[in-house]
Amino acid sequence: MRWSETYIPTLKETPAEAEIASHRLMLRAGLIRKLAAGTYSYLPLGMRSLAKVTAIIREEMEAASVREVLLPALQPAELWKRSGRWETMGPEMIRFKNRHGRDTVLGPTHEEVITDLLVGEVRSYRDLPKNLYQIQTKFRDEPRPRFGVIRSCEFLMKDAYSFDRDAEALEKRYRRMFEAYETIFKRCGLNTIPVEADTGVMGGDDSHEFMVPAGSGEDTIVQCAGCGYAASKDRAAKKLGVEIQEGVACPKCKKGMKLLPAIEVGHIFKLGTKYSAALGAAFLDEAGQSKPIIMGCYGIGVTRLLPAIIETHHDEAGILWPVSVAPYPAVIVPLKISDPAQAGLPEQVERELTEAGVECLLDDREVSAGVKMKDADLIGFPIRILLSDKTLQKNSAEVKFRGEAEATLVPLTELLQQVKKRA
Amino acid sequence: MRWSETYIPTLKETPAEAEIASHRLMLRAGLIRKLAAGTYSYLPLGMRSLAKVTAIIREEMEAASVREVLLPALQPAELWKRSGRWETMGPEMIRFKNRHGRDTVLGPTHEEVITDLLVGEVRSYRDLPKNLYQIQTKFRDEPRPRFGVIRSCEFLMKDAYSFDRDAEALEKRYRRMFEAYETIFKRCGLNTIPVEADTGVMGGDDSHEFMVPAGSGEDTIVQCAGCGYAASKDRAAKKLGVEIQEGVACPKCKKGMKLLPAIEVGHIFKLGTKYSAALGAAFLDEAGQSKPIIMGCYGIGVTRLLPAIIETHHDEAGILWPVSVAPYPAVIVPLKISDPAQAGLPEQVERELTEAGVECLLDDREVSAGVKMKDADLIGFPIRILLSDKTLQKNSAEVKFRGEAEATLVPLTELLQQVKKRA
Repeated sequence: MRWSETYIPTLKETPAEAEIASHRLMLRAGLIRKLAAGTYSYLPLGMRSLAKVTAIIREEMEAASVREVLLPALQPAELWKRSGRWETMGPEMIRFKNRHGRDTVLGPTHEEVITDLLVGEVRSYRDLPKNLYQIQTKFRDEPRPRFGVIRSCEFLMKDAYSFDRDAEALEKRYRRMFEAYETIFKRCGLNTIPVEADTGVMGGDDSHEFMVPAGSGEDTIVQCAGCGYAASKDRAAKKLGVEIQEGVACPKCKKGMKLLPAIEVGHIFKLGTKYSAALGAAFLDEAGQSKPIIMGCYGIGVTRLLPAIIETHHDEAGILWPVSVAPYPAVIVPLKISDPAQAGLPEQVERELTEAGVECLLDDREVSAGVKMKDADLIGFPIRILLSDKTLQKNSAEVKFRGEAEATLVPLTELLQQVKKRA
Repeated sequence: MRWSETYIPTLKETPAEAEIASHRLMLRAGLIRKLAAGTYSYLPLGMRSLAKVTAIIREEMEAASVREVLLPALQPAELWKRSGRWETMGPEMIRFKNRHGRDTVLGPTHEEVITDLLVGEVRSYRDLPKNLYQIQTKFRDEPRPRFGVIRSCEFLMKDAYSFDRDAEALEKRYRRMFEAYETIFKRCGLNTIPVEADTGVMGGDDSHEFMVPAGSGEDTIVQCAGCGYAASKDRAAKKLGVEIQEGVACPKCKKGMKLLPAIEVGHIFKLGTKYSAALGAAFLDEAGQSKPIIMGCYGIGVTRLLPAIIETHHDEAGILWPVSVAPYPAVIVPLKISDPAQAGLPEQVERELTEAGVECLLDDREVSAGVKMKDADLIGFPIRILLSDKTLQKNSAEVKFRGEAEATLVPLTELLQQVKKRA
């Protein structure tokens, strides 16, 4: 891929709107642009990283036997009235009347819709379990959208829902999803702490949040240095019955607990029968008794993963993408190649890498060496391959891994092999 | 993949809401379910075919050097006022005030947003051309949603936009997109007729629609049996200055023209400078003169492709999926296998096909042979592999291709090879 054939408007200056590192870097590296308060466009590089992240999520959901669906954003108010959330959801839920005067909701979440989807079609214990997910746009009219795509009014979410016959089956499913979440975040290069959490407006019995410790995080978690117990601040306060401060005693081992700022990237809930009972999603058990289906729901803030990764993977010069989610693992930077016989070499390297399955971007812009090097660091390609008169005199390319201090001269004959090892 | 591990609620009866074959079959085969007037949920099988179609589109867009972006659905009214479409778009555009009282549009299309995205960042003729696309949900408050996902209020669209320096470059790009469209529709198994069309509310100079001839189509095209000239009915009427009826003379060769009902699946436009001039998307040419960027836009009704395929690929028993877009190319149907030594065979065939890259569904339901065979025909898997005592006595499987009358007994040792050929 050539730089000139895509759209990467990098910025030298930090836009005034950017408050935290990820927001600043996503704008500067040309990953996103703001359309209005709380709404962002993804440009080609941002879209590529987003596609990597969603591909990882899809793989792990399929591996956990969860099947993909796609549910509408436009939802009839009637469903929300039946679940009771028409009243309990605040002004962050976008509501309007359609042209026929019907109250319509722009889905902030999909428990009602997916529960209704199974009514009358899942009838017997033999039809259970069912495990479904979607990756879809959610809408929330945030009072104070901020931090770029971390708290925005329109965002991609992966929301999965489980339908089981009893609490035991739910417990098993919940653990399987917990494991899938740990794998997903790990593959994205994220270090998450799973914490006990409140269920809030979702209802239900039990829930865990997956938190990425980061100085800029809007949430606060408490973690025990002794036994490792961790909870959201609110949950810990409720459990302990006290205001949480640094050093408060762990409810499990009584050691002192630490407060940590963090970014929430996932949240899983044991919903129980709240939605199935309200919406009539029932099944007949072996004895022919009708029972409400036991539900769980499992969310990942998909568009929030990119800023969470960047918050924990950057330096002064720019982003340090993990290879798994980099827009391109490698960038090829040709500098002042005066020998006409070598003029086609960057294109040849690009072709060879691409054919070997290494996605790479060839910086074919007519700009200075300094601009190319700075942009490569800013965007944060894991591997930078520099070709110049100097390297070509030694039949070599200069290979530098982002985040490592030293560059290495690699003979052209070994380049593909060396790069493949790390890409 | 096992049938029991996904969610395929097939229906024996035709739902009363279904007016045409594709609508009826998408409901009966468990591809979609209606949530409310004009809004549908995609179930796992529908989602798989949708994923096949979007993968084809993405491959052909990339091959045509078009790069993927993702633009917001929530759009500030201000942009639409500047383009003039705040007034010209009718009540099908969903508008509401957000919690801060700002007029907001739920995007029915994205010319304004994408044009604004380039303002101030594409500055010189050296930054052009740019070619971007997205696959994203559009919202239109249809007065009379009908035909299932053919005319719905929320649908997936692929919308691409080109930005060029002059009419000549646009013409070249337009032709390249025209070719990409022909390839995409062909790969989806669709026979399309490209027709001259009106530009309507989009504005611009020139446009073509890609139409799938189908008895249930809401649109009408005219086609000349002599020279092949084809146009939408409205366009032909304007061009000829007469009301179009069967047998009207072709404007090119004067032969009689035929009227054909058809489904519109794609529409490409030479927009010219309508949006770039209104929104200030300009570039400096070699002489340092500021000029508005010349634009084109290129739409595909992604969710409309499935019903268009089904309208043209079905029989009395159900769907006849082209392999390229089938939810699974193959279904494995085990029937009454009484020999305990053979009990694991269906699973083994499933594993071998999957490992060989043939996506297959194993019908592990405890239902009658009749139900399994009927559902296999209804869903329309291209290849049905039947395993029974009868076939196993001959160390064989019965392989039947959907739409072909005869089944063939294939030795188990040749099964993989035979299936791979057609999958």
